[in-house]
Amino acid sequence: MDAGVSPVALAACPFELGSWSRDQLERVERALSAWVAADAPAGLGEAMRYAVLDGGKRLRPLLVLAASEAVNGHPDAAVRAACAVELIHAYSLVHDDMPCMDNDVLRRGKPTVHVQYGEARALLAGDALQALAFDLLTPEYSGIPAATQAQLCRLLARAAGFEGMAGGQAIDLASVGHSLDEAQLRAMHRMKTGALLQCSVMMGAACADPAVAVDSRTTAALNDFGAALGLAFQVVDDILDVVADSETLGKTAGKDAARDKPTYVSVLGLERSRAHARELLAQALEALDRSGLSAERTRVLRALAGAVVNRSS
Amino acid sequence: MDAGVSPVALAACPFELGSWSRDQLERVERALSAWVAADAPAGLGEAMRYAVLDGGKRLRPLLVLAASEAVNGHPDAAVRAACAVELIHAYSLVHDDMPCMDNDVLRRGKPTVHVQYGEARALLAGDALQALAFDLLTPEYSGIPAATQAQLCRLLARAAGFEGMAGGQAIDLASVGHSLDEAQLRAMHRMKTGALLQCSVMMGAACADPAVAVDSRTTAALNDFGAALGLAFQVVDDILDVVADSETLGKTAGKDAARDKPTYVSVLGLERSRAHARELLAQALEALDRSGLSAERTRVLRALAGAVVNRSS
Repeated sequence: MDAGVSPVALAACPFELGSWSRDQLERVERALSAWVAADAPAGLGEAMRYAVLDGGKRLRPLLVLAASEAVNGHPDAAVRAACAVELIHAYSLVHDDMPCMDNDVLRRGKPTVHVQYGEARALLAGDALQALAFDLLTPEYSGIPAATQAQLCRLLARAAGFEGMAGGQAIDLASVGHSLDEAQLRAMHRMKTGALLQCSVMMGAACADPAVAVDSRTTAALNDFGAALGLAFQVVDDILDVVADSETLGKTAGKDAARDKPTYVSVLGLERSRAHARELLAQALEALDRSGLSAERTRVLRALAGAVVNRSS
Repeated sequence: MDAGVSPVALAACPFELGSWSRDQLERVERALSAWVAADAPAGLGEAMRYAVLDGGKRLRPLLVLAASEAVNGHPDAAVRAACAVELIHAYSLVHDDMPCMDNDVLRRGKPTVHVQYGEARALLAGDALQALAFDLLTPEYSGIPAATQAQLCRLLARAAGFEGMAGGQAIDLASVGHSLDEAQLRAMHRMKTGALLQCSVMMGAACADPAVAVDSRTTAALNDFGAALGLAFQVVDDILDVVADSETLGKTAGKDAARDKPTYVSVLGLERSRAHARELLAQALEALDRSGLSAERTRVLRALAGAVVNRSS
């Protein structure tokens, strides 16, 4: 079952997202397979590859590549940024699934990393994936300007750290069994999942030639687009956790409710959550309207926003 | 009890290391206290600060600052690099102490982070410290050239990841109960502790003005210095694990032997380990001799090398 949000965005976008996505995903999978540490010692590489390859929707890489396309970004920088943000996402899932956190045994339809390789190796694989993300962003011999490399590291470090993903996870952990109001829930999700999604858009934008700076209006609009989309993603996630089954999701469904975690559905109810997802999609698209970028340049970002809100898994 | 290595290096260095170190440590402590996330949400900042502040020898920061001084590096870049490498070291200790790894309860004379705050928060604090390291290296408004920022991220990411520290920890984990020969032990330690110590020296060197490139002879010599010193550090660590008591070390003594982990002492014996530490110190000092840097410029690096080998904790 899908999230039940009307497919307004996709109808407004005749552009064929599926074909674009397939091509880009092929690039991303090839790059990840080449870069993720097959030869890391003592089984570490195997666990890292297991955590990253052959699974996942790759939404964050697609957002990076779409935003880079919107600003005519450096292609190699964009693929590196796409893979780096996916490595951060993948490491966070590995650690989040561990017994001391969510203690989950199923992820993307497979046993989680610690179930497969033991907790110690899962911990190290997550740590090594985070380091590898910054390694990928700073190739020594490449045509990627140093200013671009530094900016990509800056964006990713902040989105992953205490002001972003890790901070949001700490709030999430502390909120189990407590009731949050909508503002608190939003603040948590802006950090926990929103920051990395928004960062994906901004990393794509940061792939533009530093000599031809993206103007501040465009940067601000893309930032707003990323913020709205990041939150919409979480609202839909909370809806799907209630309405979809584990097989469709590839992870344990209903687990937030079972753990007494506050969600959009528990705070707003199902119908108001669906309406909120539609509002956030409208905000995201409106941000692109005022970006100063042509409809042609932003067509992929528009289509991705629609797909995020209308997804069924 | 000290490691029993003769104080040859200190005798050859009339320079007063203590006074230099006190001044530098004050800079580092002040910077860490300002930068480590007091306001991170849900107790995360508290755990991060507990892991980093008020403890530790700060050898890695001192190496960064000493190497930067040797090449007349950018002072702000050097302090940031010094703190960043210490954050990576601190996060690795937090994760390494967790029950699924070494399961240690005492560190720097205090309960370990997971004992104090629980495993979940310890895991997240470690993750957030790693991200913060790269955040510190990429300040948006600063006089630090983008090329320096990118190079610092590059060095740190590689030293922390699967080719360095995390890879070495994976080998360490897999080696419990197995016998390693000296070459295997060296390979493990070059990654596990050596990579980050060597990286500290190279990060200091990378603080030089990119417009006045440090020549390749100097870079190679500093790299050799860092490699020898990194290994010497571990040999002395293994000696102290046998000859010192927990109170002096501020951590559990004798734990490697208790866990049947291969060490330099178990492979070479105590006397040959001491001789090996002296040889490595000599190699480190010889590398500085051929660096092309003046004795005045390298005096702190020389004194630090001596202190590493002659330490008692």
